Amino acid sequence: MATAGKVIRCKAAVAWGPKKPLVLEKIEVAPPQVNEVRIKIVATSVCHTDLYHLFECEHNNGFPIVLGHEGAGIVESIGPGVTEFQPGDKVIPLPIPQCGECHFCKSPKTNQCVKGWTAGSSIMLALPDSRFTCKGKKVLQFAGTSTFSEYTVVRTMAVAKIDPAAPLDKVCLLGCGVCTGFGAAVNTAKVEPGSTCAVFGLGAVGLAAVMGCKSAGAKRIIAVDVNPDKFEKAKVFGATDFVNPKDHNKPISQVLAEMTNGGVDYSLECVGNVAVMRSALESCVQGWGVSVIVGWTDSSDFAARPMQLIAGRTWKGSLFGGFRSKDGVPEMVKAYMEKKVKLDEFITHTMTLDQVNDAIDLMKHGKCVRTVLSVCSQ
Amino acid sequence: MATAGKVIRCKAAVAWGPKKPLVLEKIEVAPPQVNEVRIKIVATSVCHTDLYHLFECEHNNGFPIVLGHEGAGIVESIGPGVTEFQPGDKVIPLPIPQCGECHFCKSPKTNQCVKGWTAGSSIMLALPDSRFTCKGKKVLQFAGTSTFSEYTVVRTMAVAKIDPAAPLDKVCLLGCGVCTGFGAAVNTAKVEPGSTCAVFGLGAVGLAAVMGCKSAGAKRIIAVDVNPDKFEKAKVFGATDFVNPKDHNKPISQVLAEMTNGGVDYSLECVGNVAVMRSALESCVQGWGVSVIVGWTDSSDFAARPMQLIAGRTWKGSLFGGFRSKDGVPEMVKAYMEKKVKLDEFITHTMTLDQVNDAIDLMKHGKCVRTVLSVCSQ
Repeated sequence: MATAGKVIRCKAAVAWGPKKPLVLEKIEVAPPQVNEVRIKIVATSVCHTDLYHLFECEHNNGFPIVLGHEGAGIVESIGPGVTEFQPGDKVIPLPIPQCGECHFCKSPKTNQCVKGWTAGSSIMLALPDSRFTCKGKKVLQFAGTSTFSEYTVVRTMAVAKIDPAAPLDKVCLLGCGVCTGFGAAVNTAKVEPGSTCAVFGLGAVGLAAVMGCKSAGAKRIIAVDVNPDKFEKAKVFGATDFVNPKDHNKPISQVLAEMTNGGVDYSLECVGNVAVMRSALESCVQGWGVSVIVGWTDSSDFAARPMQLIAGRTWKGSLFGGFRSKDGVPEMVKAYMEKKVKLDEFITHTMTLDQVNDAIDLMKHGKCVRTVLSVCSQ
Repeated sequence: MATAGKVIRCKAAVAWGPKKPLVLEKIEVAPPQVNEVRIKIVATSVCHTDLYHLFECEHNNGFPIVLGHEGAGIVESIGPGVTEFQPGDKVIPLPIPQCGECHFCKSPKTNQCVKGWTAGSSIMLALPDSRFTCKGKKVLQFAGTSTFSEYTVVRTMAVAKIDPAAPLDKVCLLGCGVCTGFGAAVNTAKVEPGSTCAVFGLGAVGLAAVMGCKSAGAKRIIAVDVNPDKFEKAKVFGATDFVNPKDHNKPISQVLAEMTNGGVDYSLECVGNVAVMRSALESCVQGWGVSVIVGWTDSSDFAARPMQLIAGRTWKGSLFGGFRSKDGVPEMVKAYMEKKVKLDEFITHTMTLDQVNDAIDLMKHGKCVRTVLSVCSQ
């Protein structure tokens, strides 16, 4: 391409500081370095983790940054040493890498990679090693991806090559939320056929968890949300029962225990709220109940009584649904193309990158499941 | 026997109220009812859970009670319908039953039994349905066993028949603590050969956990205790490294991360302290670390940051080491007889039932591992 090896000046939505609207700016995107590719982003969706960084991250050193981590695009150019990708490849940038060489990547027990971000910091997703500048300032990269930009540079270990026939404005959802929820049920909880599940929170991640439970053969999937408007959509993905905690004067764990034989086999917390994490654990059946924390928060402790675990429950967490990112995302794309997983049903709104603040507002107020922003034309 | 079908008057240590010394009393033990056996207790040891009830249970309705739940004895008489036991059988009373018929007993996923105590109450181990009276008052049964008595009546679903050659003054330890710690490593954590483990707290349960880790093939077993006097004993059971948190100015999780490749594969909390539970979780390696709560407490919450689990750790709990009680205890007796597990090395003191308060004092002040009290002669 004519742009290969050159700095690209293009449009991006820049977050200049916490709690401020994003600003559409002209930014410079430097060429990819060794083992990097530059991607033209065709479509990106907005995920709660973008909002988490914008609204809950109090550190000014997490800005300026280009947010967005749920995107899909086309390789524009490749850096030195790259043989795995060619310009024109359809790809999904990955918020967690898979280097394939570290002791995590070589273990069958985890989808983590030592080249990924380090857990434990609330600004962990703001990476200073970016190829972005704006108005003479370095701009941070978010989650290694930064998809709210017409172009972005990503390490090859964090890029998945996908089916060239895949519609990018749909499969962009597989960059984070759908894999996260679906995999949490299938890979982390390891939901068994005939089991009873509860999913707390019916955003995109929760709906994908419902879909994962159904795909794994769960007999009963109880959808829990304080907003009953979400139940209709949950039914589309396979939920069989619907509970609004506001309709009950007793703890939700007691409500679920009464609906089931003492509790559910699996519960998935897809809210990112520590009180809900406790409820989800307590809603599991004594003896073998497994509760998985899927929702993203790290601003306070989650807690419960020790007897909850001593009585036989297991508490787990799930990152990117337990999928090895480079292996898992193309498989999920394939599953979508074969109609084994739904994606279109998550998309409630379509906009352009210029409308990113409207999309953020919709999500902030729970008015959407997923808004897909078109960025560049193919 | 001459006593069959009659009330037996015998000696027992009665706890009349919280935080008071036990009183050696003459009590009446009624004959066993349907599906019960009356056991002559030959030996009993003192376990922390006895102390927990005595010193941390604030409810006066948990008294008067006969404590003790780690004992061994001989069947004196059997109630109507009992075919599984005969007078003269050597047995170990079990603090958790195995009815064999409930949905828990029929599931391969748990060692719980619906006929057991109900989790969630701090006085859950005080059972009003006892055969004991003293001075005209009903005396409660502790953990369904009450072994601080010359005779006790136990449901057959909570009695294990053991090898007639087994020395009761040793195998009594299998009634609780040793199975609890050993099984937490082997059955609940499922420690793998070649792995690295950390055991927090080196009482009898912790030492048994060390033994379990070694039995499962762990390459490295890090023993953690604030009392370095306990390290020598831990070495006997297989510990390879010894850490006193008081020797370090940084969190113990950081100390262990530096000693290992980022953390241990398995950690076992054998203290019953919620701060230690947190440390044990945080000491596990990101990606696949498993932490098991073995120590018994329910007076406050355990807690951690959600990111600890999202980063790939699993938090579990273990009750009676995950052993199905009636199946597991005879197997552990067999393993002891075949010298595959150690028991003698846990016993630091031997006394008589009359000295039970001295034994409790020793344990309260961490001066013993296990004190075995001889109760009746065989």
